[in-house]
Amino acid sequence: MKTPLGFKASALSCGIKRSGKPDLALIFSETPAHAAGVFTNNKLFAAPIRVSKAHLKKSGTACAIIVNSGNANSFTGRGGFKDAEKEALYLSKALGIEAKDVLVASTGIIGKRLALDKIKNAIPRLIKALSKAGMYKAARAIMTTDTFAKMASNRLSISGKEVIITGITKGAGMIAPDMATMLCFIITDANIAQRALKAALKEAVDRSFNCITIDGCMSTNDTVLILANGRAANPLIDIGSKSYYAFSSALSALCLSLAKMMVKDGEGATKFIEIRVKGALNNAQAKKAALAIANSSLFKTAIYGENPNWGRIVSAIGSSGVKVKEEDLKVKSSSLKKKDIYVEADLNIGKGETVVYTSDLTPEYIKINAEYN
Amino acid sequence: MKTPLGFKASALSCGIKRSGKPDLALIFSETPAHAAGVFTNNKLFAAPIRVSKAHLKKSGTACAIIVNSGNANSFTGRGGFKDAEKEALYLSKALGIEAKDVLVASTGIIGKRLALDKIKNAIPRLIKALSKAGMYKAARAIMTTDTFAKMASNRLSISGKEVIITGITKGAGMIAPDMATMLCFIITDANIAQRALKAALKEAVDRSFNCITIDGCMSTNDTVLILANGRAANPLIDIGSKSYYAFSSALSALCLSLAKMMVKDGEGATKFIEIRVKGALNNAQAKKAALAIANSSLFKTAIYGENPNWGRIVSAIGSSGVKVKEEDLKVKSSSLKKKDIYVEADLNIGKGETVVYTSDLTPEYIKINAEYN
Repeated sequence: MKTPLGFKASALSCGIKRSGKPDLALIFSETPAHAAGVFTNNKLFAAPIRVSKAHLKKSGTACAIIVNSGNANSFTGRGGFKDAEKEALYLSKALGIEAKDVLVASTGIIGKRLALDKIKNAIPRLIKALSKAGMYKAARAIMTTDTFAKMASNRLSISGKEVIITGITKGAGMIAPDMATMLCFIITDANIAQRALKAALKEAVDRSFNCITIDGCMSTNDTVLILANGRAANPLIDIGSKSYYAFSSALSALCLSLAKMMVKDGEGATKFIEIRVKGALNNAQAKKAALAIANSSLFKTAIYGENPNWGRIVSAIGSSGVKVKEEDLKVKSSSLKKKDIYVEADLNIGKGETVVYTSDLTPEYIKINAEYN
Repeated sequence: MKTPLGFKASALSCGIKRSGKPDLALIFSETPAHAAGVFTNNKLFAAPIRVSKAHLKKSGTACAIIVNSGNANSFTGRGGFKDAEKEALYLSKALGIEAKDVLVASTGIIGKRLALDKIKNAIPRLIKALSKAGMYKAARAIMTTDTFAKMASNRLSISGKEVIITGITKGAGMIAPDMATMLCFIITDANIAQRALKAALKEAVDRSFNCITIDGCMSTNDTVLILANGRAANPLIDIGSKSYYAFSSALSALCLSLAKMMVKDGEGATKFIEIRVKGALNNAQAKKAALAIANSSLFKTAIYGENPNWGRIVSAIGSSGVKVKEEDLKVKSSSLKKKDIYVEADLNIGKGETVVYTSDLTPEYIKINAEYN
């Protein structure tokens, strides 16, 4: 995979994870990049989110993203907020940039203070290790219960200039629409106005991460960040232009690839399930019904058991509160014996349609989450 | 347990369940009883619910309740509705009463037509088997994945007359607030106006079955029915009187006992969890937060694993959308090693308070539901 021009990344183990696995990553743009973010709707959002939001608000640019796994720095009070601020400050000094140009993110256990000294001590090594090929290492370092590192790339041509978009993400539990314990960092060398970047990111998240659910749990730390440093030297992309739609589509496709990887790596998942609801009163009702199916423990266990208990699909739709009539409803699915399952419910009363993705609910999910701390 | 005066019940195996276990029950009042019901909010409610609702609307009285397990007669179209109507008709003829005085209920698999001939053939035996001690047998016959039969009784004195209230119920999956795959049948010899009976039942359900959740799934067949035949000969209980509050409290206490039994017998449950949320903006917000905790798969698996991961409680509250501030929130719990767990979250911003009950999420839940069909 080609890395966008002007970006480097690195990762290492700074000692936050007891396992000794990589737990700290840095993504760096050699020149200031336009930046945008989408964050959890959880009202008790974590400290790094408060800091990143504030920094984005100041200028809409950033040069660096620092992320740790193993500790979410969530529900850690005023002290935790100060930790996240200091983390950005330490990194900015070491890089010779302004603190507001550093974005921070964390994932892991909730309610424990961050071992800030470990991060501080690791910063020089982290900067030294920066390389063009570092994104995959960063993808590994942000993993928690993920079983594989998730990275994808997309490219497009704008007025003859090649633009590259590369993203990394992590799941794999607390995954629900309106984000989840998911982190996603995207870098691109596109030359794009900040407001256009923001709009394209919002659209892409709506079409990807907001269409997946693993366990219906919404995390305190969900973060999607994008940096665009303009090094592809294409004519500036702004809202409403043809190039905007090309960029926006490419970004949405990239995010959907990453979102599907997250579902495939859902905690304990043995099945990848695509649920299409059509014929609903409108798109919002279609999504409501589709998510009711996707979040039904009974449906998810039936899929795990390869048990064609489609009454559970009917029951989930009926309980979602959307307009539906028994005589109009048609449900069908592909063979449950396969790893990839397709389920379709046609409400036959309107033109609303949506697709959501989910995984099955398995004894392994319970094992993972009964023991995780 | 004493049975209310003037009631009989019976149960047998008519062949709907492949296992040959009891699957058909009859509850009968020798004299017409005031009747009231509360039903699922699932928009795709089952055929027997449509019939029982219509019969209750006609007169507000009933003499008999016939219930089968093994087949929900849900999502069975116009044919399924006719089956439920015929079932009531056959029973009414055999008992020499009007069809509108028969209430029907079903639980089991969704989407299969009822074996109506098996029920029809069993009706004479069912009537012959009626006895004062039959309620416990009826409790056994309505079981699906339940591991024990659930029956409770309460008594009170009204103007020197003893009034008895007896109820049976079944769970044990698809249990969510606003009812679930739950059936509950209550009989009492109280002399009570129909409107008072209806009001007392609604209150009791709100305080009991609507405060429990096992898997967040709402069924198509949830039904709570009560018959009051007046044989205790107490002065008529009507709304607003002192005796109404005595009766209503006794009925609520009975329903709460039955609801707790359902949680204790939740599919695969190893823990009984009481969740109290206090200090919320109002009672509705307290309930919203409490149910968000109770329905969180991550919380439920943590309790199963005896894993003090209280960050999941915080995260669930934050994701529920209720007003909450990190600095005000206090969470505590009893020892997770015990079978009965108490969890308390104090939002410290208002006087809203609620208690809900739930069970843990275990590999056994998945095993049961992966195989059930």
